[in-house]
Amino acid sequence: MKLEHIGIAVKDLNFSNDLFTKLLGKSAYKEEAVESEGVLTSFFSAGESKVELVGSTKNNSAIEKYLEKNREGIHHLAFGVDNLDKEIERLKNEGFIFINETPKLGADNKRIVFLHPKTTNGVLVELCEDVK
Amino acid sequence: MKLEHIGIAVKDLNFSNDLFTKLLGKSAYKEEAVESEGVLTSFFSAGESKVELVGSTKNNSAIEKYLEKNREGIHHLAFGVDNLDKEIERLKNEGFIFINETPKLGADNKRIVFLHPKTTNGVLVELCEDVK
Repeated sequence: MKLEHIGIAVKDLNFSNDLFTKLLGKSAYKEEAVESEGVLTSFFSAGESKVELVGSTKNNSAIEKYLEKNREGIHHLAFGVDNLDKEIERLKNEGFIFINETPKLGADNKRIVFLHPKTTNGVLVELCEDVK
Repeated sequence: MKLEHIGIAVKDLNFSNDLFTKLLGKSAYKEEAVESEGVLTSFFSAGESKVELVGSTKNNSAIEKYLEKNREGIHHLAFGVDNLDKEIERLKNEGFIFINETPKLGADNKRIVFLHPKTTNGVLVELCEDVK
């Protein structure tokens, strides 16, 4: 497993794009809407990993609900895996709880699942695999 | 800048070492005490980046104080840079606020500074440079 990206929940994507452009010394290399999740994302490269800013574009999206209860900040860690179905099976056997066990389509052409933070030390963990 | 590591604040380092060993499918490759910070850390490789678990070993350490106010979870993002002093200067000019502007010695033989979350979208950002 490699650290594929860090997801950061933001209120105002334009503002945060500027901020992270200054911080990282380079612009986002792409923006992408994920209609199913009601979010707009932007991606910055940071070595082998990426920083993904995630802003809500729809009422009651997961990010909007998150930002009602939490401050802006790191929302999830995503680990890239070669065989997602096999990893889901392995982690279920280890006792981890999933938010969704059935992969859905995420940003960046990936199949993704999320583990529930209650079994992962309070960290929302995403596993992702490139769609072949 | 590359994403050097993610720091996760944990209450019980032994418990969390087991948890992340199961999650990542491999053990920590090292443990290291940072006396000046009053913490014990463990490092897991995750591709080019690392996951660092940080537990408190001293009353009133920054991590103990953090865990009094927050749940366990992602504590900071660390970006590796080639020239720390130059980056500090660049980011000061961009208006970022530092917690410490004078680099101190962190885990993993690095000089480190922290930016204040109030100017970085709620994210505690560490910049680190290998000690030459």
